Amino acid sequence: MSGYSYAEVERMLATGDIDGRLTRHDLPTPALLLDLDAFESNVGAMVRHCREHGLALRPHGKTHKCPEIARFLTQAGAVGACAAKVSEAEVFAQHGVTGLLVTTPVVSRYAVERAVALARKQNDTLFLADHAANVRALDAAAAEAGVVLNIVIDLHVGRKGGVLPGLPALELARLVASLKNLKLSGLQAYAGFASHTIGYDQRRTASTEALGPAVETKRLLARHGVDCALLTGGSTGTYDIDPTIEGVTELQPGSFMFMDLDYSGIGGRDGGPYRDFRTALTVLSTVVSKPTSTLAIIDGGTKAFSTDRPILPEAVGVDGIVYSWGGDEHGKLDVRGASAAVELGDRLEFVVPHCDPTVNLYDRIFCLRSDVVEAVWPIAARGKSQ
Amino acid sequence: MSGYSYAEVERMLATGDIDGRLTRHDLPTPALLLDLDAFESNVGAMVRHCREHGLALRPHGKTHKCPEIARFLTQAGAVGACAAKVSEAEVFAQHGVTGLLVTTPVVSRYAVERAVALARKQNDTLFLADHAANVRALDAAAAEAGVVLNIVIDLHVGRKGGVLPGLPALELARLVASLKNLKLSGLQAYAGFASHTIGYDQRRTASTEALGPAVETKRLLARHGVDCALLTGGSTGTYDIDPTIEGVTELQPGSFMFMDLDYSGIGGRDGGPYRDFRTALTVLSTVVSKPTSTLAIIDGGTKAFSTDRPILPEAVGVDGIVYSWGGDEHGKLDVRGASAAVELGDRLEFVVPHCDPTVNLYDRIFCLRSDVVEAVWPIAARGKSQ
Repeated sequence: MSGYSYAEVERMLATGDIDGRLTRHDLPTPALLLDLDAFESNVGAMVRHCREHGLALRPHGKTHKCPEIARFLTQAGAVGACAAKVSEAEVFAQHGVTGLLVTTPVVSRYAVERAVALARKQNDTLFLADHAANVRALDAAAAEAGVVLNIVIDLHVGRKGGVLPGLPALELARLVASLKNLKLSGLQAYAGFASHTIGYDQRRTASTEALGPAVETKRLLARHGVDCALLTGGSTGTYDIDPTIEGVTELQPGSFMFMDLDYSGIGGRDGGPYRDFRTALTVLSTVVSKPTSTLAIIDGGTKAFSTDRPILPEAVGVDGIVYSWGGDEHGKLDVRGASAAVELGDRLEFVVPHCDPTVNLYDRIFCLRSDVVEAVWPIAARGKSQ
Repeated sequence: MSGYSYAEVERMLATGDIDGRLTRHDLPTPALLLDLDAFESNVGAMVRHCREHGLALRPHGKTHKCPEIARFLTQAGAVGACAAKVSEAEVFAQHGVTGLLVTTPVVSRYAVERAVALARKQNDTLFLADHAANVRALDAAAAEAGVVLNIVIDLHVGRKGGVLPGLPALELARLVASLKNLKLSGLQAYAGFASHTIGYDQRRTASTEALGPAVETKRLLARHGVDCALLTGGSTGTYDIDPTIEGVTELQPGSFMFMDLDYSGIGGRDGGPYRDFRTALTVLSTVVSKPTSTLAIIDGGTKAFSTDRPILPEAVGVDGIVYSWGGDEHGKLDVRGASAAVELGDRLEFVVPHCDPTVNLYDRIFCLRSDVVEAVWPIAARGKSQ
């Protein structure tokens, strides 16, 4: 610790005037940390990959919810950012991020109103739709506001939403193309389950089979003279599979920039572990109780780490620590086999089970170059799920 | 819907000037809802219960993280509020909530500094400790600041932190009592696992056995002339068990005010379901895709509901809907057996798996009397886990 009082640290964080004076040892815990070297390496690798394959990269903002990160990505070569919901896209737009694609259909009356306002502000924004009645409602709202909405038709190739590929999609595409205040801008084919399929070959099969009907649909539209250049989809697990699928023009991965234990477990191309990207995201915690020689309690529980995967946080730097949930506020560490002593007040760093929902628990991310805090970025779209 | 534009709703929410004009049909989704009738009934029941048994009630603020709720509870008869961490307690204090007990040991240098500042502001605040070196550090910090810290000794009766009951606790209590800038204020015996034990009789056994050593420790202290009136602990699952344990003087339950599917499953005193408190907390969502006749997608996934229990959200008002996770942003509804049609744009309400970490995902809670929004309360301590 550098000897700052908490009042001083709080003032630095409030004003953003940290100027390289804070280190990881100065941060109140639990804290969300970003290793900038690993993050920049991950971003560089994905940008090069997409460039080499002639694909656009529109990384998913639901992963980071952080305008600074969205801007970093576009400066590195991304065409924009995906946003899960209109409210998330609004935050990105307020911070100057353009090239937005909202990846949930815009259905409720309020969502339509907000989408129209966003399109008026940034006319390159893309909106998802998968239903004829909804498309007509969007056209009517756009007409009333005097804007044109760019529509991407979501195809049901995963296990979630979307219009059925083939004729139903063609029919919807023709409807969109026929409506004066909508512009048919592309197709989305997102198969999240494929990305999390364990084993590279199994993953390739899953993604190729899932995206097959999307590629067929794109050809069907072309044969019927419905122009639709964009086919967007793909994620971290299939980033090196989907470019080989004819017709895919854009990737929208998210987790690659941070990585997490879930993705680390999907298996690499060579049959070994998945090491295509580096672990850039961790949570820093403090030991707040040591009731016995083998049990340590830290200040990070289910409000500090996501719990949507059956995976537990893993300690960095000390081997043999076994984490288990200790409720909302605490984690329990079995330190019997720990490679170093773990004592009251010690600070320990953990890799997170799943990055996106973990980030969504925090208001800011501390960006470190080695031990020095280079920046503190607000997670400004945290909680924006509307 | 009442016909407001989103811009109007946003303005009302920003200013707080809602004046009974909004209903549940006007809220952007996903939204966290509080049924005020059920909430007030739960609070009234717990206040009466504690009064009848001569116990103090200090409900746990980690459940709601909402100053308005903390104030409502003290006005109803609670002696104050528990807070999981110092940062949570600070938010309550900023909003005028007194009688705070911080239920995580104050260990890190910053936590100590913040605790001392809080004690200077509100000298009735209670802080947890379970370790001799830490207690000495607290005394030194209190001396430097010219304050007295009220210390509650945490006993290791659950499966988490705390000093071992019996002689180790006596030794620590004597140390606290001997230090000039600390005041020994009580013992905490919190056994969270007992509260979630399924079956009333099993729960009674678990809690009685867990709290036994705490009661013994309190007697041991008394025999050695160490004055310690307060013995705090207990939670929603054991609220009607712990008052029968001699020596317990205060309950600190949280979930009773909201209830959730997890607590609904612990089994009631009569062998039937646990119905001691009413479900007051729900999440409102919208159907954003209906890809097939049997599958509907809503806008609430793992960023809208907690996932720390192996329990899925349950629809209110429509029977036979089966929810499954559809990723961070969406839920998948199997509507094959639904008792009513579920169509694109429909709004559906869900009971949550676990209340505390669900509330921690939202920035505000909409308080409803029947269908009318009576108030919108900020969840001001959301994310305050430091």
